[in-house]
Amino acid sequence: MGKMLIKNVLCAGRKTNVLIEGNRFSSLSAPSDVPSEKVIEASGLAILPPFFNTHTHAAMSLLRGYADDMELHKWLTQYIWPFEAEMTSDDIEKGSYLAIKEMIATGSVFFNDMYFDIERTVKAVDELGIRASLGVTFMESHTKAQQSEKLDILRHWQDPSGGRIMLTVAPHSIYTVGSDLLKKCASIAREGGFRYHIHLSETEKEVADCVRLHGCRPVEYLDRLGVLGDNVIAAHVVHVTEKEADILAGRGVTISHCPCSNMKLASGIFQYKMLKKAGCRITIGTDGDSSNNNLDMGEEMKFAALLAKVGSGDPETAPAEEILRCATAGGAEAFGIDSGRIEEGALADALLVDMNDIKMQPCHNLISNWVYSAGSEAIKYVICDGRIVG
Amino acid sequence: MGKMLIKNVLCAGRKTNVLIEGNRFSSLSAPSDVPSEKVIEASGLAILPPFFNTHTHAAMSLLRGYADDMELHKWLTQYIWPFEAEMTSDDIEKGSYLAIKEMIATGSVFFNDMYFDIERTVKAVDELGIRASLGVTFMESHTKAQQSEKLDILRHWQDPSGGRIMLTVAPHSIYTVGSDLLKKCASIAREGGFRYHIHLSETEKEVADCVRLHGCRPVEYLDRLGVLGDNVIAAHVVHVTEKEADILAGRGVTISHCPCSNMKLASGIFQYKMLKKAGCRITIGTDGDSSNNNLDMGEEMKFAALLAKVGSGDPETAPAEEILRCATAGGAEAFGIDSGRIEEGALADALLVDMNDIKMQPCHNLISNWVYSAGSEAIKYVICDGRIVG
Repeated sequence: MGKMLIKNVLCAGRKTNVLIEGNRFSSLSAPSDVPSEKVIEASGLAILPPFFNTHTHAAMSLLRGYADDMELHKWLTQYIWPFEAEMTSDDIEKGSYLAIKEMIATGSVFFNDMYFDIERTVKAVDELGIRASLGVTFMESHTKAQQSEKLDILRHWQDPSGGRIMLTVAPHSIYTVGSDLLKKCASIAREGGFRYHIHLSETEKEVADCVRLHGCRPVEYLDRLGVLGDNVIAAHVVHVTEKEADILAGRGVTISHCPCSNMKLASGIFQYKMLKKAGCRITIGTDGDSSNNNLDMGEEMKFAALLAKVGSGDPETAPAEEILRCATAGGAEAFGIDSGRIEEGALADALLVDMNDIKMQPCHNLISNWVYSAGSEAIKYVICDGRIVG
Repeated sequence: MGKMLIKNVLCAGRKTNVLIEGNRFSSLSAPSDVPSEKVIEASGLAILPPFFNTHTHAAMSLLRGYADDMELHKWLTQYIWPFEAEMTSDDIEKGSYLAIKEMIATGSVFFNDMYFDIERTVKAVDELGIRASLGVTFMESHTKAQQSEKLDILRHWQDPSGGRIMLTVAPHSIYTVGSDLLKKCASIAREGGFRYHIHLSETEKEVADCVRLHGCRPVEYLDRLGVLGDNVIAAHVVHVTEKEADILAGRGVTISHCPCSNMKLASGIFQYKMLKKAGCRITIGTDGDSSNNNLDMGEEMKFAALLAKVGSGDPETAPAEEILRCATAGGAEAFGIDSGRIEEGALADALLVDMNDIKMQPCHNLISNWVYSAGSEAIKYVICDGRIVG
């Protein structure tokens, strides 16, 4: 079992040596002379948990900057969908590589994806060494043959990476998937032990259409269908009532909050304070490069915190420590990954961050500097599953 | 007159050679063999205008992360003011150096400041080679002796940098400066050819207090005092009516929009769309490190654009090109500096940006990538007044 020693690193306020054995942290107070295959001299660096990006569309990195500053319908129908219609499997592979390299450069070791040609993304994740939860996407518009192919992927799934990749059942949304298929996806997920990844209550239009068609709001609708449970990852969740927040909290649903996307598309202001008060599990996602326009979770943390404050009128909402947890351990927990925290016994996923970076100076409060000030250029090493990646 | 040749640089969509003579761009299509004291091989780099930060408090860099996530009054009275009361002139000098280094690293060549011990900040700006407009701050709480010292500074001002530094008359705000002193500052500014820098309509409390004390809203109040003109730089301007927007536009006032600070302190959502429609001149500022918590104008552009979209419910508001202009040429124009654009004859201020940076890939739209995706790590050179700085 390989050993990696990180020497003289700042860890929770003290200088220490961190030892990794195999893919787990074995000691946060190791002697400085432990024989190790790999030694990192980390004076001036702090060890911090890496990011878990809970909602994205990796291969859409190819569409970064392709269409901006326009209304959602025009954006989708005149730009995004026509571009995607021309994308080949090779493009999806290239887009996945580009996205994962960007994620590593900006400190993420995990992403929860929803896209197509999943085997191409599996290949990229496996090779580049990070973790992912990849959605097998269901839409009503797919043919029977396509749907049964997707069922086959789920049925015959074997993780080539030795534990870093999982699949999810991913019905796209309530407006692209009918009630029967939403329910069928839920039973496939339950029976196969998969998570259920869906876009939910992203826009006012989605809510209004749901009320018109089903006589209730989107969260209530999914609850009536018996879909909601603690394996559900709901992306966006912008337009919800307190009653819906209580349902989400009661069912143990994980919310993936995507502030940049919601702001850029003018979808609405996420109600962080209300959802937190209701007891909801809030994590953070970047959405795709086409609507953000990057996959930088550090930047997303700042957007999440600042939007929560101005949105609620309360500057005490979403303090730095809490937002950091949403972006790290909160995401890991939602996917049952024993990571997102620097602890003996946990999976060895970490960032080593330069304390001498100018945006980290002075250091009255390391976490505040990390959440509100620093950029990804402060990240010197990204470690995933006991190995340096990137 | 020294020459600098920037070879093979991407400029407005084409590869070219940019020649600087002295402190101005002399050609955007120079031959590649012009004899020059300095040559930058810029293949793979794009030349872009640098940032003009129109509202900050540089020396407050020392307070980065000192107090966050709390209500304004508690923040000021229990943390910021007690800290500042202990700051020496040497601290202000150190804080100014730190801030200017951060500004250069993040692509700013100019800042409009409001703080104390101005001569220490003059020293730092002069030495580090960028531009600044430094406020001689007036508050009602200063003694007569302090006020006459300040008048002396303005009266005897001589720029040691040869054209990069100017002073402003900076009455802090309408709630810390009485009407007589506000008017006196205005006449000093008019007579001396100074700009007038003031915090304005930042919080709801400021507006409510003004209405109670003066029977009108802050912009109306300043207009009645005869203060508003095209030499006024008003920072924040969050809480204004359409009538006030018309006054600001009519008087040619420059607004310094500080989205991160307004969001983090939960001051309110800047009404970009309404103010733009009224014809107001909008520029961008970071405010101090204590309320942001960095001085990164690239990040501030993204916050400005995304907040304008979600705040108005209109994703077409604040497109990338327009926001870039607010952060560059718009700021330069407000201070009468012949810069903020890459043009023959203009002052030679520029950024050289790495097109191969992962957040700049692919390049469907360079400006979109720059405003919405890239971080300051893509900046490879910062040029101010014809010289490489940083």
